[in-house]
Amino acid sequence: MIRTRYFQSNGELQPEIEPAGFAAAINEPGSLLWVDFVGEPPEACEPILLDTFGFHQLAVDDALRESHVPKVDDWDNYLYIVLHDIGFEPVQAGIETFELDVFLGRNYIVTHHDFPISALDRVWELSAHDERNFKLGADHILYRITDELATDFMQVIEAMDEEIDKLENEVFQTQNFSMVQRIFALKRATLHLRRVMSPLREVFNKLARDDYAAIDKRDRVYFRDVYDHLVRLHDISESLRDLVGGTLDTYLSVINNRMNDTMKTLTLITTLFMPISFLASFFGMNFFAPEVTSPLNRWVGVSAFIPLLAVFTITPLLMYLWMRRRGWTRRSDDT
Amino acid sequence: MIRTRYFQSNGELQPEIEPAGFAAAINEPGSLLWVDFVGEPPEACEPILLDTFGFHQLAVDDALRESHVPKVDDWDNYLYIVLHDIGFEPVQAGIETFELDVFLGRNYIVTHHDFPISALDRVWELSAHDERNFKLGADHILYRITDELATDFMQVIEAMDEEIDKLENEVFQTQNFSMVQRIFALKRATLHLRRVMSPLREVFNKLARDDYAAIDKRDRVYFRDVYDHLVRLHDISESLRDLVGGTLDTYLSVINNRMNDTMKTLTLITTLFMPISFLASFFGMNFFAPEVTSPLNRWVGVSAFIPLLAVFTITPLLMYLWMRRRGWTRRSDDT
Amino acid sequence: MIRTRYFQSNGELQPEIEPAGFAAAINEPGSLLWVDFVGEPPEACEPILLDTFGFHQLAVDDALRESHVPKVDDWDNYLYIVLHDIGFEPVQAGIETFELDVFLGRNYIVTHHDFPISALDRVWELSAHDERNFKLGADHILYRITDELATDFMQVIEAMDEEIDKLENEVFQTQNFSMVQRIFALKRATLHLRRVMSPLREVFNKLARDDYAAIDKRDRVYFRDVYDHLVRLHDISESLRDLVGGTLDTYLSVINNRMNDTMKTLTLITTLFMPISFLASFFGMNFFAPEVTSPLNRWVGVSAFIPLLAVFTITPLLMYLWMRRRGWTRRSDDT
Amino acid sequence: MIRTRYFQSNGELQPEIEPAGFAAAINEPGSLLWVDFVGEPPEACEPILLDTFGFHQLAVDDALRESHVPKVDDWDNYLYIVLHDIGFEPVQAGIETFELDVFLGRNYIVTHHDFPISALDRVWELSAHDERNFKLGADHILYRITDELATDFMQVIEAMDEEIDKLENEVFQTQNFSMVQRIFALKRATLHLRRVMSPLREVFNKLARDDYAAIDKRDRVYFRDVYDHLVRLHDISESLRDLVGGTLDTYLSVINNRMNDTMKTLTLITTLFMPISFLASFFGMNFFAPEVTSPLNRWVGVSAFIPLLAVFTITPLLMYLWMRRRGWTRRSDDT
Amino acid sequence: MIRTRYFQSNGELQPEIEPAGFAAAINEPGSLLWVDFVGEPPEACEPILLDTFGFHQLAVDDALRESHVPKVDDWDNYLYIVLHDIGFEPVQAGIETFELDVFLGRNYIVTHHDFPISALDRVWELSAHDERNFKLGADHILYRITDELATDFMQVIEAMDEEIDKLENEVFQTQNFSMVQRIFALKRATLHLRRVMSPLREVFNKLARDDYAAIDKRDRVYFRDVYDHLVRLHDISESLRDLVGGTLDTYLSVINNRMNDTMKTLTLITTLFMPISFLASFFGMNFFAPEVTSPLNRWVGVSAFIPLLAVFTITPLLMYLWMRRRGWTRRSDDT
Repeated sequence: MIRTRYFQSNGELQPEIEPAGFAAAINEPGSLLWVDFVGEPPEACEPILLDTFGFHQLAVDDALRESHVPKVDDWDNYLYIVLHDIGFEPVQAGIETFELDVFLGRNYIVTHHDFPISALDRVWELSAHDERNFKLGADHILYRITDELATDFMQVIEAMDEEIDKLENEVFQTQNFSMVQRIFALKRATLHLRRVMSPLREVFNKLARDDYAAIDKRDRVYFRDVYDHLVRLHDISESLRDLVGGTLDTYLSVINNRMNDTMKTLTLITTLFMPISFLASFFGMNFFAPEVTSPLNRWVGVSAFIPLLAVFTITPLLMYLWMRRRGWTRRSDDT
Repeated sequence: MIRTRYFQSNGELQPEIEPAGFAAAINEPGSLLWVDFVGEPPEACEPILLDTFGFHQLAVDDALRESHVPKVDDWDNYLYIVLHDIGFEPVQAGIETFELDVFLGRNYIVTHHDFPISALDRVWELSAHDERNFKLGADHILYRITDELATDFMQVIEAMDEEIDKLENEVFQTQNFSMVQRIFALKRATLHLRRVMSPLREVFNKLARDDYAAIDKRDRVYFRDVYDHLVRLHDISESLRDLVGGTLDTYLSVINNRMNDTMKTLTLITTLFMPISFLASFFGMNFFAPEVTSPLNRWVGVSAFIPLLAVFTITPLLMYLWMRRRGWTRRSDDT
Repeated sequence: MIRTRYFQSNGELQPEIEPAGFAAAINEPGSLLWVDFVGEPPEACEPILLDTFGFHQLAVDDALRESHVPKVDDWDNYLYIVLHDIGFEPVQAGIETFELDVFLGRNYIVTHHDFPISALDRVWELSAHDERNFKLGADHILYRITDELATDFMQVIEAMDEEIDKLENEVFQTQNFSMVQRIFALKRATLHLRRVMSPLREVFNKLARDDYAAIDKRDRVYFRDVYDHLVRLHDISESLRDLVGGTLDTYLSVINNRMNDTMKTLTLITTLFMPISFLASFFGMNFFAPEVTSPLNRWVGVSAFIPLLAVFTITPLLMYLWMRRRGWTRRSDDT
Repeated sequence: MIRTRYFQSNGELQPEIEPAGFAAAINEPGSLLWVDFVGEPPEACEPILLDTFGFHQLAVDDALRESHVPKVDDWDNYLYIVLHDIGFEPVQAGIETFELDVFLGRNYIVTHHDFPISALDRVWELSAHDERNFKLGADHILYRITDELATDFMQVIEAMDEEIDKLENEVFQTQNFSMVQRIFALKRATLHLRRVMSPLREVFNKLARDDYAAIDKRDRVYFRDVYDHLVRLHDISESLRDLVGGTLDTYLSVINNRMNDTMKTLTLITTLFMPISFLASFFGMNFFAPEVTSPLNRWVGVSAFIPLLAVFTITPLLMYLWMRRRGWTRRSDDT
Repeated sequence: MIRTRYFQSNGELQPEIEPAGFAAAINEPGSLLWVDFVGEPPEACEPILLDTFGFHQLAVDDALRESHVPKVDDWDNYLYIVLHDIGFEPVQAGIETFELDVFLGRNYIVTHHDFPISALDRVWELSAHDERNFKLGADHILYRITDELATDFMQVIEAMDEEIDKLENEVFQTQNFSMVQRIFALKRATLHLRRVMSPLREVFNKLARDDYAAIDKRDRVYFRDVYDHLVRLHDISESLRDLVGGTLDTYLSVINNRMNDTMKTLTLITTLFMPISFLASFFGMNFFAPEVTSPLNRWVGVSAFIPLLAVFTITPLLMYLWMRRRGWTRRSDDT
């Protein structure tokens, strides 16, 4: 889909214009043209970008055929900018990025993306009603789009933060493979996020600082504002990574604690029953055989059974008390 | 709440003045105005900041509607500065930060914060009694506030240091989920602290080094002093992080030691009792049956019981001695 | 093997020319010569490089006798460039690198490599059919080769990414030494990859930015394009490293989980059978001997056997229920 | 205590002079004054520093009331320098630092410290006998002190190195909480050391490189020498940290090895005795009862006892051999 | 030992000359003097270096009395350079470094070392036969020495690489303390290597880039060549460190796998024998006593023994099959 917004020099919003009219439109001084290519095949876009707008072959190839990390290329009378929008899928803890290619000239802005980008759509909708945006120039439209992009990043980071919080509480209740998978999916997501944010931040640093023909010097302060947002978001995203790392460490500590608990229980049971089992076996030996005439057996049988019962009761009791003193009966999730 | 301190050019402290009088106040040469907005809704502050003081829309939005990492924005005839005060909650090992927005002009300072900030309140109280502060200019008030902020950071860092010390001793006594949680809460707190301190330090580096219209060149040395404090605090906070990391490693080492101890006990018990249990079972076999006429049984029954008892005593004793030589009876918390 | 492509100044492609004719060929203005040495012994190459082309002894030694990390050396009227092609062997997760030495002059390009390099061969083949490449100059041939090299890197990185994905799924099914070996082989491969990519990226940064006699200023933009590709690939390769690290952590977590499961099973079995085994032994003691006249035994034998059977059934059942409540019967791979 | 060394312009060493005479002393051209404040209360030092020497209030506060990381402050006609001396306490593996504040002018040096600093005392003693030091100027005295400080650092680092060596050998013999504590105390000490050395190194970098009124340009080479020493010491201290980290990893590996050994012993014992215990129990069943007339029992009792004994001997023997082949009888500390 | 090589201005090699003749020798234009001090006591070297050559006291102290990291000091008309040669001892995985001090002037080079350095000796031997080296000047001799040093580093790195390869294969066969010690010795060696290589690389970067009176501008390209070698070696040594780290991780994974295997065997044995041991004990109870007249016992004895035997066989078989399905019978080193 190719859609346009065209403001004539008298400030009037004109209905959709055809690609054939683009050249005339951008040649009219004081006018402003926004062309948005959405999921259009390269073959359809290429002639317009190359011939009508006169963009360089390499920039057009970058935009139509390849994926890139965010960057700014200065082609003198226009800028080629690669931006990324972002989405977060909480169930699988996956991050999706959508590339947005922007060509920015003095009085036009061309955006190209393969998938719908909600941040851009929001600005597109507003631009129909609010003519003020157009009066401020093409770079101001770019600012509006990037401001919305920053909002999307903010929401993704908040969703991830929430997910980490949830994990951190669950980690003490549940220890299984699905927990491991969720923690590592989140870790991957933070790695992914960082890989997108670092160059994006750099793009805005350049837009706010460097001298470009397509950006009014007085408008740089707006990109500075977006840059400040991204710096803050980048800082938070860095700490997300540390938090996920902490969650993994917590998980391993909890597993270790659990294992220690299990070991203690095993040792407790073994220590309680092994001695008395031995005693029972001992008196099961045939030296204590029911030889009716054996005086030894007789005597034991009659006089020793009751005290023996006491030994069977007291031995494990003493061992249990001794182990309790050593703290082995306490478990890791006791408070 | 909006509160003011106004020094007339003759050095006299004037009672509270209304917002309507701000414009006149700052136009009087040699005077000094301090306006403090505490938890005031954006709607009430915005017209004063935009119209009376003439601050830029972006700066006012930053101050009233958004949260930021510490930064300095130079708007030529005034500075917009974001600072953070800090609080530490030892029970949950949580760090709270409170944003403080400052607009600093040649003869006025405007502070805005949503929550009471004790560092600022201390300076506010002093300023009523000590007129000298006002005579030194608006930038000196900023210095006084930031000096108090540094004191707050110092106290938080000391409280955290103490908490880590406590944890490090307890880690050898107690190993349970609550310890894990406390260690990771402290780790999170140090991450949080670092995230606040790094940009704050950078703010003071700029105030001490760069050339701003709102700061007297001779007063830069004071911000240099605050900067030196923060550098030292930042260094300590970095080492806090390493110390917490060390506490976690210690915890895991202790758990591993404990597990090793438990395993040794289990093996000890098993090794002592399994052989003699087998022996007891062996002589419980019906080959040694109380068949009165069996000569084998007879002979064993009479002549072998006493030496067998010796075997039952000596076997575990020997095994115990052998294990003691291998160091298995020593426990990790033996000194 | 020494092979050549020679374009005369009139644009005509000339058949293979002999080394003796190189000097004359490069002296003809507007012509273009590409000489490719494939697996030729140093003795055969050295005189041609030193005498015919007049390259510096050190550069020729670097090219013929030593292996290097990628670099650019500027020898004023020609460039000496070391590049690396790459191959990935998925079964052993091994990375192979092939050094490609390039001498680039205004109207000639000399390539030297010990092993066939497919990226170079692809350009070689194309150059026979597509004369346009030659018309754009020697630096454009270099661009074409490096563009193909970048494609090779891309494919290797994709193959590794796939391998990591496979490992990450298998890690939950299989835990044995062969898994450990595969993970560490992949880790080594990512280390290797990074070691090649960092200096290679730097080479293209220099080619795109610096001023070299052998590279037309207008062609720098092409190397900028390759550089952008490599930056993106380098970023992906960095994240590959983190992903492999994550796979190792996952593996260790899974092993720990498995060990915990095994321990729990052991403890479960022991806890269920030890008490009832003791009871069975207890009643095997000869105090309960078949002394016909013992009234105790009689009474027990007749009236107690049935309730005892109940105890033998109920005891383990209760213990099992108690352990289930503590979550010990759940295993790590339960969903 | 306030003590002085005063060289008159004629090179003669004058006895102790009173604070009242300081002003006159430093005004005499060609003379040299060294004042040393040791553990003097701030109230006693402040007037001298502020009024007699005319140091800035902030510098004096830094020196008397606060502790700092090493730094150099240039106050035009004098330098304020914070240095640290160091001590190592091997039993507790603790590092102590002692702050030394120095004010360095063209012909005077003022040192202030709360605790005795042996490096300074050594120079103080020498200065009484060796007048040459004084003739070389105040900056040369500073050089002598810092050279001695570097020696102290060297000794601390060597003591720590020795301690690590000792630990690394013990770690294979002993594994208990006290080892964990010693390793982590040493780790903390290396962190502490690094925190002191990094800024100290920077101080000497500045003294060797920058242009200060109080330091003769020709004397910078001496501070360069101290700087080179500190660079080397810093490098060694960095590697100390890696060595301690390695010791901890070794410790954990050893614990894991030990645990593996214990587990193997347990499994060995269990595997040897469980089958034969079962067999013994089996033949203790009352199906083999001493029923005189049971032909089965009879036959077994007479003919099967001897072969059964063989089974009891051979079964564990075979199992032991099988386990030995699997390497379970070897222990970690076997060579 | 003090030995010399002296080329007169007419290119003739002169026999050993005495220290007394050094001054005259270096004053002859066009001549070239190489003095090598090997293991000479400081007292013997100092007067020559200070008085004959006129080197600065600090440089001479550095050379004779102290050890340093590699560095270059520019003393205007001569350079003082500290280099390190290296040796590797594979059995103990230890790295030895030998300091080489060089004073380089326009027409002389003075080398000082406490131990024989083979790289230097090789150049020394060659220099007797190949007069060409001398004709190229003192800086060219330095280049020859450093080129040989680089070869030594290369060999050490290859020996370490081989050692790591060996360890990586053994780690799956053997797990004991001696393995731990070898891994950590190698780790220490890589740390040591890095500590030497980083500053050494920096030395050659300076020699190749900076402007020194003692180095001919046209000869810088040779030091550039050595620098390129060292960069590559440094990269490899960095990856050695990662490889050793990987070996340690592998070791720990293998230990964990082994422990898991041991646990599984223990659980297997326990699970197989505990139930049937219980059954055997159960039927050993005296309720099944050989009371001839007990009808219960009679019936059981006659009719139940054969089915019971089946239970004793089938129970462990079923449990074994169940465990095999859960993968517990597979071991980590099964392929």
